[in-house]
Amino acid sequence: MPGLFITFEGGEGAGKSTQVRHLAAHLGATGHDVVCTREPGGTPGAEALRDFLLFGGHDLSLRAEILGHFAARFDHVDRLVRPALRRGAIVLCDRFVDSTLAYQGYGQGHADPDILDLIAALTARLGLMPDLTLVLAVPRARALERLRARGGAADRYESADESFHGRVADGFAAAIRAQPGRCLPVPADRPAADVARDVASLVDARLAAPPQASGTV
Amino acid sequence: MPGLFITFEGGEGAGKSTQVRHLAAHLGATGHDVVCTREPGGTPGAEALRDFLLFGGHDLSLRAEILGHFAARFDHVDRLVRPALRRGAIVLCDRFVDSTLAYQGYGQGHADPDILDLIAALTARLGLMPDLTLVLAVPRARALERLRARGGAADRYESADESFHGRVADGFAAAIRAQPGRCLPVPADRPAADVARDVASLVDARLAAPPQASGTV
Repeated sequence: MPGLFITFEGGEGAGKSTQVRHLAAHLGATGHDVVCTREPGGTPGAEALRDFLLFGGHDLSLRAEILGHFAARFDHVDRLVRPALRRGAIVLCDRFVDSTLAYQGYGQGHADPDILDLIAALTARLGLMPDLTLVLAVPRARALERLRARGGAADRYESADESFHGRVADGFAAAIRAQPGRCLPVPADRPAADVARDVASLVDARLAAPPQASGTV
Repeated sequence: MPGLFITFEGGEGAGKSTQVRHLAAHLGATGHDVVCTREPGGTPGAEALRDFLLFGGHDLSLRAEILGHFAARFDHVDRLVRPALRRGAIVLCDRFVDSTLAYQGYGQGHADPDILDLIAALTARLGLMPDLTLVLAVPRARALERLRARGGAADRYESADESFHGRVADGFAAAIRAQPGRCLPVPADRPAADVARDVASLVDARLAAPPQASGTV
């Protein structure tokens, strides 16, 4: 049985980690081998890089920061995602390449073509793309409400200015336009259980479909 | 006046940092603007990545480790090397891309073509190559004597096994074969002052030569 690689994308406060949990419960209940993970992170080395990149206070050039995110991603893919897919698991990942496009490419990089090209080249080098990406969208005001309710320390992106978050949203929209078969928008300004039901339907439909020529594993 | 980018390569104990100092003194005495730096490192962010990669004890996949080294390198190039070259400085760097080829490509990667291709692709993305690379070579037994005399904590490469260091030497030899106009071998199993005199002659000759179509700055 081939594995399935599903990623969740969207801004902070869109409900990604909640939806990962809901979907894992839904798939686990039907006997699937489910692996839940996140980026940046997911392996010990990548989690250490996450701390370095998000909370280390290091001021890297944008190109260097993108390479750092992909360093974490290569470790995660090589050590966790690809082995899990090879044994037939369904891997649910909170953020993946589309977040790099949105945050570094559009948010920090203002869609500079050289930066977008660097991200595309590194993404191609991974040799693995998600089979399905669910982009959760909530209005920024609602996302801020959720973040305030959540509390805790803000990482470097959560504390960025609002124009940054507008560009990040543009980046996710660009991903959906570029790969409409893989990236599906999911309205998420609703009760989590309603969003979870729609997500489960989308994934069940994908599981029932005949196998695609999907990302190289 | 265009800048000049000179890198020193070779195994541990080959005398690179000593030769950087000698050459900086020689060039400084003739009025040149000289910047001495090293890799991994050279900028605050890249030095932090150096600590992470060499002394952090993190076990990354080889692809991830290569990306991590290039993350440091992109910061160093973007923030220090390229600006210095643009103002016309001579930049002397202790290790650069050939060390990644030798240590990660040959030493850790056993010259796996996919790994060498990844390193070549990332190197091309830098948009900057050294004008001149001096590869200092000493027999391994002499290098070990020098390392023992130096003392201090061994990094992860210094403490690797001897077959690893044989592959690293193969990697530097491959760099010399591939780019003989840029990479010059310098026998270094001699008094440092003798090596320094030869290095100074090579660099003076390069400075006296008409400008080349060299690395994009």
